[in-house]
Amino acid sequence: MVEVVKNGHSFYVRGMPKVTEEHRANRRLEIVHAARKCVIEHGFHKTTMADVIRESGLSAGAVYGYFKSKDEIVAAIADDALSSIDELFEGILATEAPLTPAAAVQATLEHVIQIADLKGGDLTRVAIQAWAEALHNDAIMATASSKYRILREHFEAVARRAQADGTVDPDADPQQIAQVLFGLLPGFVLQRLLLGDVTPEGYVAGLSALLSPRQPKPV
Amino acid sequence: MVEVVKNGHSFYVRGMPKVTEEHRANRRLEIVHAARKCVIEHGFHKTTMADVIRESGLSAGAVYGYFKSKDEIVAAIADDALSSIDELFEGILATEAPLTPAAAVQATLEHVIQIADLKGGDLTRVAIQAWAEALHNDAIMATASSKYRILREHFEAVARRAQADGTVDPDADPQQIAQVLFGLLPGFVLQRLLLGDVTPEGYVAGLSALLSPRQPKPV
Repeated sequence: MVEVVKNGHSFYVRGMPKVTEEHRANRRLEIVHAARKCVIEHGFHKTTMADVIRESGLSAGAVYGYFKSKDEIVAAIADDALSSIDELFEGILATEAPLTPAAAVQATLEHVIQIADLKGGDLTRVAIQAWAEALHNDAIMATASSKYRILREHFEAVARRAQADGTVDPDADPQQIAQVLFGLLPGFVLQRLLLGDVTPEGYVAGLSALLSPRQPKPV
Repeated sequence: MVEVVKNGHSFYVRGMPKVTEEHRANRRLEIVHAARKCVIEHGFHKTTMADVIRESGLSAGAVYGYFKSKDEIVAAIADDALSSIDELFEGILATEAPLTPAAAVQATLEHVIQIADLKGGDLTRVAIQAWAEALHNDAIMATASSKYRILREHFEAVARRAQADGTVDPDADPQQIAQVLFGLLPGFVLQRLLLGDVTPEGYVAGLSALLSPRQPKPV
């Protein structure tokens, strides 16, 4: 039991020394990023523990010290890939101006483009594989569904805020609106990866056109 | 070379006898459906040619007579899974009443629910796997992107028709509107499979609420 440790740098009291915790967290993230790179290049199924170990530059013992199986790494990648969205919504909801659903979608799509452009590789390519993997892997399903439920709750908050601001019908069900706003994102990611011709600006322009409907011409 | 064949039933002239063509097409479809069942249950990657042969009840030689590799079967499944949507749009565009985007989305979602409920298994589970597979398999990418391009063109026709009918701003870009309308579908499929709580009615109600925006309250 470590009570007090004195080393060259500092004192630490009780429990796991802080530098080791940080070191472990960083090391763990290194492995997750190495595995992510493998998954982006070769897919979940063709990636092996040996690939991850090679990519990480660590020893097999070091990698297995953090993750006991490919499934555990895969869950960590999915978790990491789906995690970065929370702060985004704090920003969206913090605006003082009346909030419109189109503005919230635009901010989210810009975030998607940002995580698609990371140095470590396009995170949206991991997300799309997590969707497929979830159907046959309970751990990935649990991670993906809980993350997406949270993301959709953010959109529900957007809907309620827009209803309070008067930009959306206050009698509508905010959960149903959240399903649609959330539902626009996978369609954007899919078109970007498979058809390669969508931009946040174009998508939001299409959405804004739909959100300004007209009365049909009299026949 | 078959010039004229006389058998117990009929004459056939030149080329492949008709009964054999039909037989081949049916046999091929049987194999695709057997493979689809395997893929729905176990995923693309864990399905082997041996699984497909066993599920089809045919000999290995018979199956290999139609498909030389798992990749060829996988492409055929994806093609089959994404093919059934064309006639649907003929019906949507044939309506005499002014066409609204929400009505087109509703008809498409009802079709999605229908193919999700096939006796042979939920085709949307194949689609979601085709998305992931496309990222690492050129044949699937080619099939998926061409099918989705066609589907999106159907939505572009819906957008143009709605613009002509006066239910959508005639100055908007119908391609951008089509991106959004198409983009609503993967989001529905994903929520249905991962969160299990969306219905066409609820989704379209959410969409309709968004399509009837209000002016923000004066501050």
